[in-house]
Amino acid sequence: MTFCQKLSRRSLLRGSALGGALTATATLAQGAHHGHSKTGSLLSGVNTILFQGDSITDAGRDKKHEVANEQRAFGRGYAWMAASQLLIYQPEKKYSIYNRGISGNKVHQLDARWEKDCLDLKPDVLSILIGVNDIWHGLNGRYDGTVKTYADDYRKLIVRTKKQLPDVSLVICEPFVLRCGAVKENWFPEFDRYREAAQEIAKENKAIFIPFQSMFDEAIKYAEPKHWAGDGVHPSANGASLMAHFWLEAVKGA
Amino acid sequence: MTFCQKLSRRSLLRGSALGGALTATATLAQGAHHGHSKTGSLLSGVNTILFQGDSITDAGRDKKHEVANEQRAFGRGYAWMAASQLLIYQPEKKYSIYNRGISGNKVHQLDARWEKDCLDLKPDVLSILIGVNDIWHGLNGRYDGTVKTYADDYRKLIVRTKKQLPDVSLVICEPFVLRCGAVKENWFPEFDRYREAAQEIAKENKAIFIPFQSMFDEAIKYAEPKHWAGDGVHPSANGASLMAHFWLEAVKGA
Repeated sequence: MTFCQKLSRRSLLRGSALGGALTATATLAQGAHHGHSKTGSLLSGVNTILFQGDSITDAGRDKKHEVANEQRAFGRGYAWMAASQLLIYQPEKKYSIYNRGISGNKVHQLDARWEKDCLDLKPDVLSILIGVNDIWHGLNGRYDGTVKTYADDYRKLIVRTKKQLPDVSLVICEPFVLRCGAVKENWFPEFDRYREAAQEIAKENKAIFIPFQSMFDEAIKYAEPKHWAGDGVHPSANGASLMAHFWLEAVKGA
Repeated sequence: MTFCQKLSRRSLLRGSALGGALTATATLAQGAHHGHSKTGSLLSGVNTILFQGDSITDAGRDKKHEVANEQRAFGRGYAWMAASQLLIYQPEKKYSIYNRGISGNKVHQLDARWEKDCLDLKPDVLSILIGVNDIWHGLNGRYDGTVKTYADDYRKLIVRTKKQLPDVSLVICEPFVLRCGAVKENWFPEFDRYREAAQEIAKENKAIFIPFQSMFDEAIKYAEPKHWAGDGVHPSANGASLMAHFWLEAVKGA
């Protein structure tokens, strides 16, 4: 058995040493596998991949140039790193990959632009990372939504998506923070409830769940939190590269 | 068959669409597989991994703090991205990973510090990326070595290494440049001969060969050269992340 096969077996069947969230991923990824592609991987036959979210996904992309596969349309974050690595490693697959993250977005703001920025693109794989502004804008008094608002809005968005795109493969990314910069003690334990809600929604929908918080909890054993995200919210290039690795491993292995 | 298995099959047996260099990788990686690990992957049973090279590997590491697995001892380049991704994705493997690249080094300078900076560490996997200074310092009049000097010195270094570490798994990285910044037309076709020499040495030694030049030749279809390496020689964070992806795919798949 090759290392690659072992990785697949490990992540799909046995979970990993990263604890609860990654074990959940294992099950969810397996669910996604059975749900979407009995004869191969989630990426078999996939043409269009869409990254959606807030500033972490946006990462400085040029919103006047919203084409597939070009760096200018992607910014410099995890979405570009994951996309460019897929495109360059497997040019023969001819993927069309889009980034439509917008800085500052909460779930209801995704919903407001969903027709144009998701449904019209008809993605085969839809990856969403949303949640940090849903709590942050509440903590700084700019928003009165709660974790219930977040979860209700998120569930409605998924129902709407699956109604119009019944075959879409969903990737739901765990919201995460590093304990440094703007992230203070008053974020907790409230923030954990947003993470749990995202994971619940992934489970209900047999989506692939990317456990970014567990990943960063492991990462801080090797470098201090600010190495991965200076302000605690927005990943550095090294944080983004780590995210791209976990995203690709989960999606390719599913 | 999973996507991961397909990737392995593709990279090990059939080569890829990236042309000559990656097809060669396929054969070389297969050679490495057969040579080193009849019962599993190259990383089975591996504890110690060492990255060696010049400034591209060095990437600002703290040379007063040469411990395994810590970011400070690694800098922020491809070696750290690959190492941190292995460590964080598979914490149960308990790898010890070192970076001993030094800015400005040519092959003979690796040789001068090889006892302390390679042999004493007894790596199970040794990854070397060297060559750009061997040509660059010649072009700017600071060095009189030729491609023959490079190849002779490189072969001697490998003989020395294998004599003392007969079971080491070798990873030989292709020297690369982007056509921008400091890299002018007078680098070619001479530079191509250095790349070919590295690939020949990989083949002779059944090493894994990482075709970074072919990778960047594909990458410039998606973003301009300076996106990947501003001065043509030293990768940006996005260039380093791409290198880490190819390095990990090749080493895990072998």
